[in-house]
Amino acid sequence: MPKGKPDFVPDDGLTTRQRRNRPLLIVHTGTMKGKSTAAFGMALRAWNQGWSIGVFQFVKSAKWKVGEEAALRALGEVHANTGQGGPVEWHKMGEGWSWARKAGTEEDHAANAREGWAEIARRISAAQHDFYVLDEFNYPLHWGWIDVGEVVEVLRDRPGRQHVVITGRNAPPELVEAADLVVEMTKVKHPMDAGQKGQRGIEW
Amino acid sequence: MPKGKPDFVPDDGLTTRQRRNRPLLIVHTGTMKGKSTAAFGMALRAWNQGWSIGVFQFVKSAKWKVGEEAALRALGEVHANTGQGGPVEWHKMGEGWSWARKAGTEEDHAANAREGWAEIARRISAAQHDFYVLDEFNYPLHWGWIDVGEVVEVLRDRPGRQHVVITGRNAPPELVEAADLVVEMTKVKHPMDAGQKGQRGIEW
Repeated sequence: MPKGKPDFVPDDGLTTRQRRNRPLLIVHTGTMKGKSTAAFGMALRAWNQGWSIGVFQFVKSAKWKVGEEAALRALGEVHANTGQGGPVEWHKMGEGWSWARKAGTEEDHAANAREGWAEIARRISAAQHDFYVLDEFNYPLHWGWIDVGEVVEVLRDRPGRQHVVITGRNAPPELVEAADLVVEMTKVKHPMDAGQKGQRGIEW
Repeated sequence: MPKGKPDFVPDDGLTTRQRRNRPLLIVHTGTMKGKSTAAFGMALRAWNQGWSIGVFQFVKSAKWKVGEEAALRALGEVHANTGQGGPVEWHKMGEGWSWARKAGTEEDHAANAREGWAEIARRISAAQHDFYVLDEFNYPLHWGWIDVGEVVEVLRDRPGRQHVVITGRNAPPELVEAADLVVEMTKVKHPMDAGQKGQRGIEW
């Protein structure tokens, strides 16, 4: 994407630099592939800035992101070993969150999702990371497991300079309203239309 | 994206495994951000499979992908040092291609683009990489610098199991027709609408 100029300069009392560096709330939604993939692609840029990255996966199975997880963990190791880039934490809901004292109850996904959000809200209030990926977070919001109003409030009031990327279909309207950048991935053509199943290295 | 089942099983004489492992031609197009970013996110999965990755950037300036380049090169180093993941090559048009004996003429972008495509076609014929990112390649195609029919022919006839991802606005119809997977990134909301310019770590 070529470097662009904004169409107008808002009368918001901010300098160009302040406005430029305003932390972003980004939503990747739509029915098509690429929502999470683009979020992890963004994490590469964040890593290169030396930012602290926190990934939180709101999915039951982690099978579908093993490649991204391995690569981003490897980049976190590069940081730990050489100082290049930034640190990476990767947490997934799976069978309870990694920070939880006991494994979550497999059956109560809603409670697990709420526990995940509570931890994220704590980290955001403490400005613990610079770049968050809340992967598939739109699902627990869409299903009403987590209160969207509370999420928007925590995100709006977040201190410092924390960028947050939220992925998943059916982004709630209140979240889209609060976001700075919303991308919808739409389908033009998919190999499953031609009877092809997912394959290693491409889908996971 | 949950693991799906294809809607129908085609009568193409292939086993499910053969069909599953068919190499893909993928196009990321549309006016919105995320096209290249999602391609580099896919490269993380390819890397984790130990695949050889070749990135070819068809842009004049490389400024906008420095984060992805640094992170993917770091992953290539991880592979070289530990054997984890796969090797990564990153080539950019900039001031001539890295393999060219002499620097390209800054003025003749069309000739530089054609030289890039000629090298890619050679590598594809030799099955040199497993995963190609032809970043912003839709532009030289759209502008008529490179013949789309020839590109489609080389891609259609490519030997072995080489996946190719092509990004950029205005994907030519013949390329969309030949592709297995086409994603269009569409804009819902962008911070430039609110007068915010691009920022370090987010845009590059």
